[in-house]
Amino acid sequence: MSDPLPGHLVDELVRRTLAEDLGLAGDLSSAAAIDADADGTADLVARAAGTVAGLDVALAVFGAVDVRVRAGAAAADGDAVDAGTLLAQVAGPTRALLTAERAALNILGHASGIATATRQVVDAVAGTGVRIVDTRKTTPGLRALEKHAVRCGGGHNHRFGLFDAVMLKDNHLVAAGGIGPAVAAVRERVGHTVHIEVEIDDLEQLPAALEAGADSILLDNLDDEALRAAVRLVAGRAITEASGGITPQRAAAVAGTGVDVISLGWLTHSAPRLDVALDLQPEATR
Amino acid sequence: MSDPLPGHLVDELVRRTLAEDLGLAGDLSSAAAIDADADGTADLVARAAGTVAGLDVALAVFGAVDVRVRAGAAAADGDAVDAGTLLAQVAGPTRALLTAERAALNILGHASGIATATRQVVDAVAGTGVRIVDTRKTTPGLRALEKHAVRCGGGHNHRFGLFDAVMLKDNHLVAAGGIGPAVAAVRERVGHTVHIEVEIDDLEQLPAALEAGADSILLDNLDDEALRAAVRLVAGRAITEASGGITPQRAAAVAGTGVDVISLGWLTHSAPRLDVALDLQPEATR
Amino acid sequence: MSDPLPGHLVDELVRRTLAEDLGLAGDLSSAAAIDADADGTADLVARAAGTVAGLDVALAVFGAVDVRVRAGAAAADGDAVDAGTLLAQVAGPTRALLTAERAALNILGHASGIATATRQVVDAVAGTGVRIVDTRKTTPGLRALEKHAVRCGGGHNHRFGLFDAVMLKDNHLVAAGGIGPAVAAVRERVGHTVHIEVEIDDLEQLPAALEAGADSILLDNLDDEALRAAVRLVAGRAITEASGGITPQRAAAVAGTGVDVISLGWLTHSAPRLDVALDLQPEATR
Amino acid sequence: MSDPLPGHLVDELVRRTLAEDLGLAGDLSSAAAIDADADGTADLVARAAGTVAGLDVALAVFGAVDVRVRAGAAAADGDAVDAGTLLAQVAGPTRALLTAERAALNILGHASGIATATRQVVDAVAGTGVRIVDTRKTTPGLRALEKHAVRCGGGHNHRFGLFDAVMLKDNHLVAAGGIGPAVAAVRERVGHTVHIEVEIDDLEQLPAALEAGADSILLDNLDDEALRAAVRLVAGRAITEASGGITPQRAAAVAGTGVDVISLGWLTHSAPRLDVALDLQPEATR
Amino acid sequence: MSDPLPGHLVDELVRRTLAEDLGLAGDLSSAAAIDADADGTADLVARAAGTVAGLDVALAVFGAVDVRVRAGAAAADGDAVDAGTLLAQVAGPTRALLTAERAALNILGHASGIATATRQVVDAVAGTGVRIVDTRKTTPGLRALEKHAVRCGGGHNHRFGLFDAVMLKDNHLVAAGGIGPAVAAVRERVGHTVHIEVEIDDLEQLPAALEAGADSILLDNLDDEALRAAVRLVAGRAITEASGGITPQRAAAVAGTGVDVISLGWLTHSAPRLDVALDLQPEATR
Amino acid sequence: MSDPLPGHLVDELVRRTLAEDLGLAGDLSSAAAIDADADGTADLVARAAGTVAGLDVALAVFGAVDVRVRAGAAAADGDAVDAGTLLAQVAGPTRALLTAERAALNILGHASGIATATRQVVDAVAGTGVRIVDTRKTTPGLRALEKHAVRCGGGHNHRFGLFDAVMLKDNHLVAAGGIGPAVAAVRERVGHTVHIEVEIDDLEQLPAALEAGADSILLDNLDDEALRAAVRLVAGRAITEASGGITPQRAAAVAGTGVDVISLGWLTHSAPRLDVALDLQPEATR
Repeated sequence: MSDPLPGHLVDELVRRTLAEDLGLAGDLSSAAAIDADADGTADLVARAAGTVAGLDVALAVFGAVDVRVRAGAAAADGDAVDAGTLLAQVAGPTRALLTAERAALNILGHASGIATATRQVVDAVAGTGVRIVDTRKTTPGLRALEKHAVRCGGGHNHRFGLFDAVMLKDNHLVAAGGIGPAVAAVRERVGHTVHIEVEIDDLEQLPAALEAGADSILLDNLDDEALRAAVRLVAGRAITEASGGITPQRAAAVAGTGVDVISLGWLTHSAPRLDVALDLQPEATR
Repeated sequence: MSDPLPGHLVDELVRRTLAEDLGLAGDLSSAAAIDADADGTADLVARAAGTVAGLDVALAVFGAVDVRVRAGAAAADGDAVDAGTLLAQVAGPTRALLTAERAALNILGHASGIATATRQVVDAVAGTGVRIVDTRKTTPGLRALEKHAVRCGGGHNHRFGLFDAVMLKDNHLVAAGGIGPAVAAVRERVGHTVHIEVEIDDLEQLPAALEAGADSILLDNLDDEALRAAVRLVAGRAITEASGGITPQRAAAVAGTGVDVISLGWLTHSAPRLDVALDLQPEATR
Repeated sequence: MSDPLPGHLVDELVRRTLAEDLGLAGDLSSAAAIDADADGTADLVARAAGTVAGLDVALAVFGAVDVRVRAGAAAADGDAVDAGTLLAQVAGPTRALLTAERAALNILGHASGIATATRQVVDAVAGTGVRIVDTRKTTPGLRALEKHAVRCGGGHNHRFGLFDAVMLKDNHLVAAGGIGPAVAAVRERVGHTVHIEVEIDDLEQLPAALEAGADSILLDNLDDEALRAAVRLVAGRAITEASGGITPQRAAAVAGTGVDVISLGWLTHSAPRLDVALDLQPEATR
Repeated sequence: MSDPLPGHLVDELVRRTLAEDLGLAGDLSSAAAIDADADGTADLVARAAGTVAGLDVALAVFGAVDVRVRAGAAAADGDAVDAGTLLAQVAGPTRALLTAERAALNILGHASGIATATRQVVDAVAGTGVRIVDTRKTTPGLRALEKHAVRCGGGHNHRFGLFDAVMLKDNHLVAAGGIGPAVAAVRERVGHTVHIEVEIDDLEQLPAALEAGADSILLDNLDDEALRAAVRLVAGRAITEASGGITPQRAAAVAGTGVDVISLGWLTHSAPRLDVALDLQPEATR
Repeated sequence: MSDPLPGHLVDELVRRTLAEDLGLAGDLSSAAAIDADADGTADLVARAAGTVAGLDVALAVFGAVDVRVRAGAAAADGDAVDAGTLLAQVAGPTRALLTAERAALNILGHASGIATATRQVVDAVAGTGVRIVDTRKTTPGLRALEKHAVRCGGGHNHRFGLFDAVMLKDNHLVAAGGIGPAVAAVRERVGHTVHIEVEIDDLEQLPAALEAGADSILLDNLDDEALRAAVRLVAGRAITEASGGITPQRAAAVAGTGVDVISLGWLTHSAPRLDVALDLQPEATR
Repeated sequence: MSDPLPGHLVDELVRRTLAEDLGLAGDLSSAAAIDADADGTADLVARAAGTVAGLDVALAVFGAVDVRVRAGAAAADGDAVDAGTLLAQVAGPTRALLTAERAALNILGHASGIATATRQVVDAVAGTGVRIVDTRKTTPGLRALEKHAVRCGGGHNHRFGLFDAVMLKDNHLVAAGGIGPAVAAVRERVGHTVHIEVEIDDLEQLPAALEAGADSILLDNLDDEALRAAVRLVAGRAITEASGGITPQRAAAVAGTGVDVISLGWLTHSAPRLDVALDLQPEATR
């Protein structure tokens, strides 16, 4: 459904997550209490309704702990699931299942929490044609995973970093001597594939942004009426993006103003985790 | 106030956070719109009331972007601050200030969000002597920072991973043939400094756990009455820990049962970010 | 003149370059033949005329070998210099100067070779308004440095990788069922800041590409007449890019067709090194 | 034919090359335009005549993108091939083939370019018994690959770095008080397996170098007559190496002087890329 | 028998060990003298009697050099073996067997040396119930492997680092104002699973340590009589550990004093290597 | 005295050593018991007589923990010191001194142990002109440090790995069809700076090795009489090296046979640690 994470990022994320849980001594509890030869089967289950993200990465954790673990997915990233839905089954050495459990769940729960939050907002604006997009307000070290999760939730990605699109904010505009000179200076220097967005917080700045040829215009902290006016004024000459403290509740109203894109930092910096669990099948430990 | 993060972790976290924001091309916007020679001063400010965590790490981001940036902290990790409080001031090349902004804020906002959430729960149980502790339900790759943030909020740390304490859960107990054999097997193998905690979800398991000599007992998903009964039964022979879906709201009631420790996964996996911002001083961009 | 490389990339490049030259044993020759206390001064000099790139990185090599080396730049990235021009002076322990010499020159000569080649092509099309851009045909592991070098030579960067812009080639177009469906499918999935370029090798594909709303059109291996026809047909509705075996000699003619952008893989994959050298001042070794 | 690269270097090179092409978002074009289930077969083909190097590394790129890709080599490192020669065939998910294409070609084209250039020079001196060797003037981060490519072209490797052989140049000789003291000081300190070469640029230095017991003597920038005189004077007591601006054209003449070894920095720092391509078979995308 | 090393540590240790043996050029000798197609079988054999540790890691070296090598263990970590015992057999390309040989033996010999030394001390105190434990005096970079080796020898692990248990030494006690305040300050700050040990070198400090509630007490450099007195005084209220210059010879006497734990830095910092070898079977090289 | 370690290796070794001691939580004891503002001074002292190695690396540990620590060396690598000799003084935050203590001592004690052992053997053969050299039997991950330590003890380094010299052992010789063909095959392939050593364990192999033109000959496990015979037979045509179970005690006798080089694996794989300590000055903790 959604594009997968590049493999080297999956490997690195799995390794990093396991390394901080295993340290130098590994899983003391399982090594001492579980027979090395015991095999088991466990179900990865959603405890709450939501949208899945990070399932492949989570399953990769089990294989990284022990190559003998076999994983079979019963759902896929992007799926909307009910509480109790089986997401995947893993089978292999019981020790490995228990050792990998928390690392896998932390990845899956975090990513699915973001996908679930995104899906709620996306559903709230369904039919309006507006896009729900993320921001750079992501958790340190997890930008790729979190932006993947936003895609799983039906959202779209804004730029990934400072390197792949230009966003001219107040400080840039002042420093460069205004919107016109700023856009011109940037256009002159950056590659022809680089998108230039100008952030404005006052409708009076809008004509200058349009005239400067901004590819899109970020309308920051404007009320719905101002947004509507902006959309009318832009009249398709640039992509319009609303941002600034937009809660999931307010998204539908904002979508009604006709903007093209709504961005919410909340999706990635404050979405609560989706409750997921690993249930070891009873016979597995005999 | 709280112990600082080990330096190699700070370096690694800063490097990783900047790397994903800068990619191969760096900050296109600032490089094009801001004069390389322009200097500025900016204030790191709390936009909402909360508890600070990760300030040193956030300030290290600026120095990593440009060694010429000078940072002066006006607050410290662990401080409770009001909305509008100045946390630190950074001065140096304006480009560097803008380039580092988001990476620094993402670290500071994430850690302070956890510290703020922790502080709320800690305050809710003030005077009871109970400890609020975290879990292993942390964000992948950020366990050290998040556990530091919990300490900044007045909480305490549970074990850091599978490697530094034993937690025997249902699967371990079944596999080892019961609580007694499980604890004995573990005690025989692990070092004398390793703490052994047994998780039970039924009071009937408590006598066996005490008899086995568990250092602490995790009382999972018990109601307040059962918790009170458990505390009476334990009578100081082990540390008692309550866990399982304990919301900040319910914490005070649980504390009233007399348990020693309350653990909440919510602190690290779902606490919303604290709103922090970087305000470039007007004259800085002239 | 040109945007600097992000610092973490400089550090990594310097470390990697030194590591492969020093191995586990270090500089056997200097350690044995040069007194540890001897200090010297050396000139970094262009042996041939060209355009400078990578000077900051090269100077960072000396500091990485020994923090006591002081470096003073006499030129800057982007400068056009004659044979014999002093680029920088480094002073400090003679051993460090000799140990760092080859690693520094390899970086500087490689990057400056690309900048010099770029500058030649850029100069060849001067006045036409056409942009000379690079491709993804870069040397493994050096994309950031090489694209920086292209900027130093007055060129512009095409996309940095598969991640920051879309390029739909023949295989994509066939797989997606044609230009129209391909562009539509991509537009639907990628973020609003992502530029979409369509590659065509036949003028008959042009109307479909325009209709599909491609942001730019890569005209691959077309002769000048076809390029001129394409430019007329596009009429400003998309950016036009010519590519395919364009030698520096042919660039001016291509520029005359009116295309907006000319891309040359040759800039980064086959430009010869600029000859640069380190001259230790005679008195330095006494 | 030629010794393979150590596996950890192959892994690292593949990972680094892919990482800079995929970034955090991966291959946007293929993910959007190519069906995840589509399989294909592609031919890795030489577009120009040359000598192959880096084929194993290039094929490893495909497997690193997707383990399901099967690669079958039709040529081997060291093979001389004509334009149009099939080098290998790769089959698997079409997306993976397209994603890996450029990274694989960049490695293969770069290494084969060096092998091709080396082979030309080696062929030019065929029958003379002289060895063509590389230098430390390699591309940053690619020394192992490039020296492997030189071997693939029939050349030999000079020292790999500052760590595995001694080269005493003018600065070392002056600092140590002359050739005799310099060689003696080095011989006293380095291990008995370390080869010592002395660089001279004047025949008058030759007797001292021989007397000092240098294992080999680098004759820098001498004309053919001087080289012949040097060879006569050395009379087999040391290995003789000619270097300094030796172009492929001049190599045969230099070989005629009787020197044992000719070194050319040009092989690794300025050899143009060999043109290689990936041709997706038509049926592959249906 | 003993818990295995976490997989990411095995991978890292194998990679690091091979990297320093192979450098950029790999195994020059085998590449030149051994046919690439030759297959062989080799025996990993103990040349002296001892206790095995690190066998899995050593076998992983062969697979890292060439995935075609098949390894079959004939012994396991923790086994006591006689001189001449076959530990494992490896079969595959002869080149790979020879290339991996030294790296594998260095790991196996080092770890088994520690296990052997530990087993000697453990046997010397057999029947006393005392535990033989390691310290933090480990070889840089090898703590996990060495502590694993101690477990293989029948010993137990003391804390793994500064992070997983508290040890209050003289400097801490003085700085905190005495044993009572020191323990109280630590107890207040660290998590409830953190063990607190107090080091004393004078019996007069013992009552304060007990009163402070130390979990264990390190009796440093006390003679046997003082140790006996300490054990009597502690009377089971804390774990007693003897340390300080305890040689294997003296261990039995110390064990007789009734202490619970004896720690020896010697196990990990000075145990001689166990002599292990790789014997290539004669037919293997034909 | 001895060549320093390359800086990137020092950094990596310090980082790795600290990382395994600090984990995610850092130094729990010092953070809790030592005031963050307390400053102290400590002496790094040799507790036993020996030869110093690794002092610079050890001092770098303190700076890596806290940049405010100032270190002043009172000795240097290669110095022979008595028990009680002050090696260096470190001053700065007391916490940092205590946190860095064990990591620094582990490096210094390990390296100095090897230097001390080497010096003993070197002294035992003083006046004979024979060289004492190390082998590849080093501790995994520490080859560079350990070979540096051998140099500090007055020894010399044998090859650093499989990559910088050829050693033809029995298996190579058999596989290549004898000594003559083996040396010829290697000489043909490796670079002209690569030293070729042939290992023989029977005097009858010696003529073939000499005839083949081996640069040096390893006489493995020969008795003194055979060594003497070998030296006579070689008569300066190759370097002679004795190896195989040579203890420090036997070294003088072996040296008397006239061989050029004696190699001992024991130097790096089994030398006991030199006892070094950190003494915090009394006033430091007030």
